[in-house]
Amino acid sequence: MSIERYDIVIVGAGPVGLLLSTCLARWGYKIKHVDMRPVPTVTGRADGIQPRSLDLLRNMGLKRAIMANEPAKVYEVAFWDPSESGIHRTGTWASCPKFLDARYPFTTLLHQGLIERVFIDDLQKNGVKLQRPWKITGFNTDAVDKHYPVEVSIAHVDGDEQETVRAKYLFSGEGARSFVREQLGVGITHKDPIAHVWGVMDGVVRTNFPDIKMKCTIHSDAGSIMVIPREANMVRLYIQIASSTDADWDPRKSATTEDVQERAKKIMQPYWIEWDRVEWYSVYPIGQGIADRYTLDERVFMGGDCCHTHSPKAGQGMNTAFLDAQNLAWKIHHVESGFADRSILKSYESERKLIAENLLNFDSQYAKLFSQRQPSAGEVGHVSQHAADTGATEENEFIKMFKASCEFTSGYGVAYNENIFNWSESHPAQSPLFLSEKQGTTTQRTGRILTPATVTRVADANVVHLEQEIPLNGSYRIYLFGGKPAKTKQAISDFASNINKKGSFYSSYIRSDADTVSYHERHNPHSLFYTFATIFNAARPDIEIKSMLPEVLVRYFDHVYADDVWDQRVPDAKAAAHAKMGLSEEEGGVIVVRPDGYVGAIVKLVEGSGTVDALNAYFDSFCQKKLGGERAQL
Amino acid sequence: MSIERYDIVIVGAGPVGLLLSTCLARWGYKIKHVDMRPVPTVTGRADGIQPRSLDLLRNMGLKRAIMANEPAKVYEVAFWDPSESGIHRTGTWASCPKFLDARYPFTTLLHQGLIERVFIDDLQKNGVKLQRPWKITGFNTDAVDKHYPVEVSIAHVDGDEQETVRAKYLFSGEGARSFVREQLGVGITHKDPIAHVWGVMDGVVRTNFPDIKMKCTIHSDAGSIMVIPREANMVRLYIQIASSTDADWDPRKSATTEDVQERAKKIMQPYWIEWDRVEWYSVYPIGQGIADRYTLDERVFMGGDCCHTHSPKAGQGMNTAFLDAQNLAWKIHHVESGFADRSILKSYESERKLIAENLLNFDSQYAKLFSQRQPSAGEVGHVSQHAADTGATEENEFIKMFKASCEFTSGYGVAYNENIFNWSESHPAQSPLFLSEKQGTTTQRTGRILTPATVTRVADANVVHLEQEIPLNGSYRIYLFGGKPAKTKQAISDFASNINKKGSFYSSYIRSDADTVSYHERHNPHSLFYTFATIFNAARPDIEIKSMLPEVLVRYFDHVYADDVWDQRVPDAKAAAHAKMGLSEEEGGVIVVRPDGYVGAIVKLVEGSGTVDALNAYFDSFCQKKLGGERAQL
Repeated sequence: MSIERYDIVIVGAGPVGLLLSTCLARWGYKIKHVDMRPVPTVTGRADGIQPRSLDLLRNMGLKRAIMANEPAKVYEVAFWDPSESGIHRTGTWASCPKFLDARYPFTTLLHQGLIERVFIDDLQKNGVKLQRPWKITGFNTDAVDKHYPVEVSIAHVDGDEQETVRAKYLFSGEGARSFVREQLGVGITHKDPIAHVWGVMDGVVRTNFPDIKMKCTIHSDAGSIMVIPREANMVRLYIQIASSTDADWDPRKSATTEDVQERAKKIMQPYWIEWDRVEWYSVYPIGQGIADRYTLDERVFMGGDCCHTHSPKAGQGMNTAFLDAQNLAWKIHHVESGFADRSILKSYESERKLIAENLLNFDSQYAKLFSQRQPSAGEVGHVSQHAADTGATEENEFIKMFKASCEFTSGYGVAYNENIFNWSESHPAQSPLFLSEKQGTTTQRTGRILTPATVTRVADANVVHLEQEIPLNGSYRIYLFGGKPAKTKQAISDFASNINKKGSFYSSYIRSDADTVSYHERHNPHSLFYTFATIFNAARPDIEIKSMLPEVLVRYFDHVYADDVWDQRVPDAKAAAHAKMGLSEEEGGVIVVRPDGYVGAIVKLVEGSGTVDALNAYFDSFCQKKLGGERAQL
Repeated sequence: MSIERYDIVIVGAGPVGLLLSTCLARWGYKIKHVDMRPVPTVTGRADGIQPRSLDLLRNMGLKRAIMANEPAKVYEVAFWDPSESGIHRTGTWASCPKFLDARYPFTTLLHQGLIERVFIDDLQKNGVKLQRPWKITGFNTDAVDKHYPVEVSIAHVDGDEQETVRAKYLFSGEGARSFVREQLGVGITHKDPIAHVWGVMDGVVRTNFPDIKMKCTIHSDAGSIMVIPREANMVRLYIQIASSTDADWDPRKSATTEDVQERAKKIMQPYWIEWDRVEWYSVYPIGQGIADRYTLDERVFMGGDCCHTHSPKAGQGMNTAFLDAQNLAWKIHHVESGFADRSILKSYESERKLIAENLLNFDSQYAKLFSQRQPSAGEVGHVSQHAADTGATEENEFIKMFKASCEFTSGYGVAYNENIFNWSESHPAQSPLFLSEKQGTTTQRTGRILTPATVTRVADANVVHLEQEIPLNGSYRIYLFGGKPAKTKQAISDFASNINKKGSFYSSYIRSDADTVSYHERHNPHSLFYTFATIFNAARPDIEIKSMLPEVLVRYFDHVYADDVWDQRVPDAKAAAHAKMGLSEEEGGVIVVRPDGYVGAIVKLVEGSGTVDALNAYFDSFCQKKLGGERAQL
């Protein structure tokens, strides 16, 4: 009997494994997905979806299913500090302040099991059934089958069934205790030597504490608590039970439900609190740690808690896991589909490990803030007021950290360094037409998410979110900001003729079934790796797609937009999307966005071949085929 | 065997029957609901959800389930007219222009069966199972059981099973061919003597016609078509096949699928159109008609197509049916729960028949426009441009009619006349404190929907839609606009002490289980007939619910709001919600909104008993108990 072959074996059905599996299943890969647990998470665990993650879930078409569970939404954080007669509120601030341009400026709180089920339902639609409760028992990368170099052994947790399969890739989303990481001998580096024991309790409470439906950090002479609202009238309380800085530090120190409730009652004086019921209670030690490597051979990968552990206070775990998975998914896809060079897989570790390091640095700072800093009423009240009114802040040290934290915790602080995907002056692609935020020629920063913008879709006059118009489909998103149609007619025509030339980034990757693609295919009529969107500085009724665009772009008629929606952030702009991107409202420009929504490169839109030459050079730095206009002439 | 008793028997599970059933089921009534069809609508039928109806569905918590079907959204209507070389676009205009303050300024297009399923799922959660395929075979109102005066006989459509039950009410949502209406001998009045035969075809098409994803009216020398986009790449075409104004008028005239496709191809020249498949095709005669009565005895009621038939062109049928049902639901509830006098049931016919008459008048005008008027490019282009830029329009006759039509077709033109619910100067309740739009003391119009406003909920800092905060729960919505807290402290305190007085509209209807109501009850902690919301002109962090409000209002802590969100429609207002309601930003005011979202009365907020006296007088005009502050002193 021949051994079963898969594109990938995924171990663990938490957020990281599920998101990876969901992406790859949609893109047609054959997946073996196992999880040790017999059922999805029943209670407790991570539950904070940050603003950036909600963008991602929407981009995957999963947001509505998440929101159907009526999660709690956190818009503000309240700080409570000790006073003579018990705690009092020092101030509040926005969870995602206005200086961040977020579509969903709040944290969404929902039980992890409900989130997992949304992914599991989607996987089922794409023919992937989780195999549970099964675990990985061994794996090996060998030369027996060069196309499927990883042999993986899995077994039922009861041990009475087992299987051995071969795969192109193995992914561990096993969580902090990872068999794969252990077998690989990958070490954990502890960034912050301080460890903590945390108690966490989900329950339904009655109280006269006024901020029970907000996120709160409460400091009192009797101890500290973090309050996090949840769906269905539930509240989560985090209580620090022990710290390795305590004189009597014991990592096995525990506390009963009643202990924690009694302590919460004392901390929350002069307010009363009573429990209708406790949904979940757990005590667990947390140490900060980061895996030294995310992969050794770009065949066996790890992500999520397997690679980074930290305190749960800032609600970052699931969000970081989502982005780990998203980052890896499209890179595997681009390699396996013949688009990009295998070497791009190295960027998974370099991009995501940096983010985890930032997270751990942030986490230890945040932990210090939680245990030490008691902001005074004046300071915090000022921040909140000021941020709400003007979107700006004064730059004292405390506010700087607050501001940096908000950007980080919202997920919008994720910034990938310059590399082959994220153009900079040191990128192999060189052209005077590349624009950059550093030079002040655009507001868009490579390695950062595209700025959101609201526009009108020409085909049906729907008012839409431009950044969401192209779903997470594994394609590069080429946004052609067309400025004033009369000004750019020649440049757009030249753009089209140059992408049609043999050897261009575009014509080199035309899909093999391009002649028979459905009329109703909106995103990938010609290539699986690019979707084009054209945005004109014109009123919708003045845009005639067929007469104003070259044929190749007409085919993307569902992705032609009028930049005619007023935006409060650029109140004087005629073309708000152009203005927000920092592009000329007259002359436009081209923004290349990676499949995961991060900006790759920004290029001036000019007459002649320059714009496409620059794009050819950019893609040539990582594509499998040699690209470039010159070669087309050979 | 004793006969089974129900609160209501509902016949027909189209939009009107389902919405009525859904409301009453949620409010705890015992329902027998039958439908002749073995399954919900499979294809075709009504499918346009107007902006106002989407508000209503959201207020019922059903919007998300509707939108999960990814319906098409119509934001603009395009007009195409004949020219020498085939059709050309004359202009476009907004389907719900900016001068209408709509949350959802578009028409939602979705197959009726999918809409029905959303209601059916909700009914199942509330224990109502549709009995199908069953039909009504007889009914009789008698004195045998005065609490259940209606005897209803129903039978399986095959005739092999039958039942007789007794009910408090019988409702016919049977559609145009109504057994109940016929038995009652209620006639149909034909407002417009012109009848038409229509062909309607749903299908998936390929075409180079640029506006295929918009709503279009196309006039050509070969005939006229209306194009309506649908979900899942479908398009609906309406073609007028015959008119009673034709010389050879034959109400049985028909046409095949191929006939209609050939005609559409001719009409759409110089564009081509091809069908991938036809989902549904039907030809049917339509005459305008309106039932002379909606009820004879306020026990047997009718609604929906049973009471009004008209052309499908403006997409009003389902929307009018929804509002019929909603209007009746809360009135039956208020009578049966001991709140309001039985006489209020007469207002179902008086309110809804007026709307149907307006609809039929509109429909015949619209039909004329469709068949005759060819707006010139200049006119329409101007309207579209102007409405988009400034929200205002010039007042030539054509534009006036366009404007009136948009308000009507969006559902926001529904205006109930003055009556016991809709205060006017001739209302039995008299007080100088009543405010009115006629006198210019408020912008809110009684009998019209409350203006939407965005505010911040104090308890959790969520930014919310004020008009949606109280769900369709059968309660009156008392919006206490508190102005500046420092200014209105005494007035609000007086408001609270007066509603607490014996004999007030409020204290007369305290729920019997008020002492044991759950701490988590947000809307009806004290009374099933009122929900209070308080809105202050203050920043959210400056509002301390417990110290700023009297105890009775503190209990509605989830309904306290900060009017601190900027609104483009009142850019200079400090408190946008106050300003939009036309209330003093300093002194506030009280707006009473009917359970269906229509404004009932607006009263000045003053110190002393005046405000509550006015409200007592208002409610006294239709409540079962005698209300009034004077009586409290007896």
